[in-house]
Amino acid sequence: MPETHIRRRHALRNLLRERELDAMLVTNLLNIRYLTGFTGSNAALLVHAADGPNSEDRTVFCTDGRYLTQAGEEVPDLATVIERASDVALAERAASSAALFRRTGFESHHVSVEHFDLLDRAFGAVELVRAPGLVEQLRVVKDEGEIESLRKACAVADRALADLVEQGGIRPGRTELEVARELESRMIEHGAEGPSFETIVAAGENSAVPHHRPGQYVLRDGDFVKIDFGALVEGYHSDMTRTLVIGQPADWQREIYEVVRAAQRAGREAVRDGADVRETDSAARKVIEDAGYGEYFLHSLGHGVGLEIHEAPALAQRGDGRISSGMAVTVEPGIYLAGQGGVRIEDTLVVRPSTPELLTLTTKELVTV
Amino acid sequence: MPETHIRRRHALRNLLRERELDAMLVTNLLNIRYLTGFTGSNAALLVHAADGPNSEDRTVFCTDGRYLTQAGEEVPDLATVIERASDVALAERAASSAALFRRTGFESHHVSVEHFDLLDRAFGAVELVRAPGLVEQLRVVKDEGEIESLRKACAVADRALADLVEQGGIRPGRTELEVARELESRMIEHGAEGPSFETIVAAGENSAVPHHRPGQYVLRDGDFVKIDFGALVEGYHSDMTRTLVIGQPADWQREIYEVVRAAQRAGREAVRDGADVRETDSAARKVIEDAGYGEYFLHSLGHGVGLEIHEAPALAQRGDGRISSGMAVTVEPGIYLAGQGGVRIEDTLVVRPSTPELLTLTTKELVTV
Repeated sequence: MPETHIRRRHALRNLLRERELDAMLVTNLLNIRYLTGFTGSNAALLVHAADGPNSEDRTVFCTDGRYLTQAGEEVPDLATVIERASDVALAERAASSAALFRRTGFESHHVSVEHFDLLDRAFGAVELVRAPGLVEQLRVVKDEGEIESLRKACAVADRALADLVEQGGIRPGRTELEVARELESRMIEHGAEGPSFETIVAAGENSAVPHHRPGQYVLRDGDFVKIDFGALVEGYHSDMTRTLVIGQPADWQREIYEVVRAAQRAGREAVRDGADVRETDSAARKVIEDAGYGEYFLHSLGHGVGLEIHEAPALAQRGDGRISSGMAVTVEPGIYLAGQGGVRIEDTLVVRPSTPELLTLTTKELVTV
Repeated sequence: MPETHIRRRHALRNLLRERELDAMLVTNLLNIRYLTGFTGSNAALLVHAADGPNSEDRTVFCTDGRYLTQAGEEVPDLATVIERASDVALAERAASSAALFRRTGFESHHVSVEHFDLLDRAFGAVELVRAPGLVEQLRVVKDEGEIESLRKACAVADRALADLVEQGGIRPGRTELEVARELESRMIEHGAEGPSFETIVAAGENSAVPHHRPGQYVLRDGDFVKIDFGALVEGYHSDMTRTLVIGQPADWQREIYEVVRAAQRAGREAVRDGADVRETDSAARKVIEDAGYGEYFLHSLGHGVGLEIHEAPALAQRGDGRISSGMAVTVEPGIYLAGQGGVRIEDTLVVRPSTPELLTLTTKELVTV
């Protein structure tokens, strides 16, 4: 693990030198976790840009006294300062060697207007330079350790859903909320740190609402049951949607299910190294449009996933940029017929040089319970 | 519920007029939830300061298309705009009636340096004025609806712990992590939306680490088992710590347990309307100091709790301000003997004109399992 973090900090230093920055203050906790492995709730990291054999020497990590032991275990390889106001402490440290930290970047997309003043004063003679999204830029392409965590998170979700279905958890008479809670509880039993977001269970007409919150609606025969959920494992989020039918599916249900399934397959096939993100969305959207349901696909195709449930890239008509190997993304087209019902099918997958690696492995056949 | 939100917006308008602000852009989602009831993940709210019978007319709520239905249900009483870049959309709206929004406050403790530029451009001729922490100031004193949510959250935690203990969940041979997962899973079964933070289960020597993360340590006879956890219900967080002993407690365990218990009682009694926050900390700390363990109480006495797990006020030596009726706070002294073991006892309670109302009701007798 320390090698991973050293490698990531090295990659950040390259970006800093390209921008003629002497250092960077990292305050976003997810970015700190990415660069150091620290998982506590208060920390700051000052990465010096100097490269070479002693490149890590001027890089300092700071957290407060509650995390003294944890910091020793998780961040054994960096000089550590213990101080409650972590970022201010590191700023004062830089100010006292201002010649080494002349131009220091900060996370201007994360530091608030109010807090910036505090930092700017603490940094003294150091010039603070906006450096938004630098670490996020590194995080877009996952390394194998991250992919392994995502694989575990997806496996936990697969197992929890399989248990729920096999043990009759989705049945007439239960409320959406009961189903959602059982699924979340099963994910925790299988090793999730928690759900990766508030579980969506949307049955009957509610399945036509893309982001329905599960409520007191009672499941009944003939309902679509759309379940969008994920597990958090080692800080990484899985994201999967499956739509089932209780009892015998009606013709309209089979029809839209198969259209969404074909669109999802087309979307997955379009997620290739080098593809424009807009093309991936178009590939799935075209299948739905050609079937006459274009106006009922109400959102974009997918999004990156990792330490956050939504991160770059956006697989969307209004997206920008290209897919590359090692990105982890969701592919999740849907058709939503208001007042009737809807279907979404979503996988989490990793872009590979040839075909993408599917991480969520639950069947996409139409399952009836 | 709408009356509650109308009352809160009315209270905010009073603060705005005191500051000679014409309006305020609220972007912190918890503050938006507090002022409108909206629970989605993207929204902005522009509150106009004008009072009177039509005071709500110029106040506008914005969210994106995914939440169209939800916004209609949760925020039926405000004009609603549907736009993905919610805050920018409201800024442009204000810009087009700049005379009515001359001086508009924004959450400068929440808006990033980078995002501020975007908002400032969108607001056009409107002058943006820093207004940090205004809504948080209202949130410190809870209304009865909020207290009822906290009461439910605390009851879920009480029930989950009772089940865990009664059904033998805390026993030699289990890992800390297994105990933590069972407890979280039981909270969800009892109706929690999730744990209110990462559950701490710290056994044996680990109980001496204030913020230990549960791991593979196997519980054994004679261990302290310190459990710090909470349930999230209706967006409100409960927070409770209990420390149990497996088997027969040793004399040193009984001793520090009783000192912490007496300190916790003294702390609770000191949490009175009008008390200085530093006095509440001192009242508990003195009991621990008098017993000779002063240097082993490593943190402050407690914190406010509500829509966030940590919010104002801080019950601490370095705190500031006075306690008042309706505040919800934790009281959580501890003694931590490194390499040996530790005890923390924590309740969530509501300040009342006379004695505080205890929300976490699990016994504070020394429980052995």
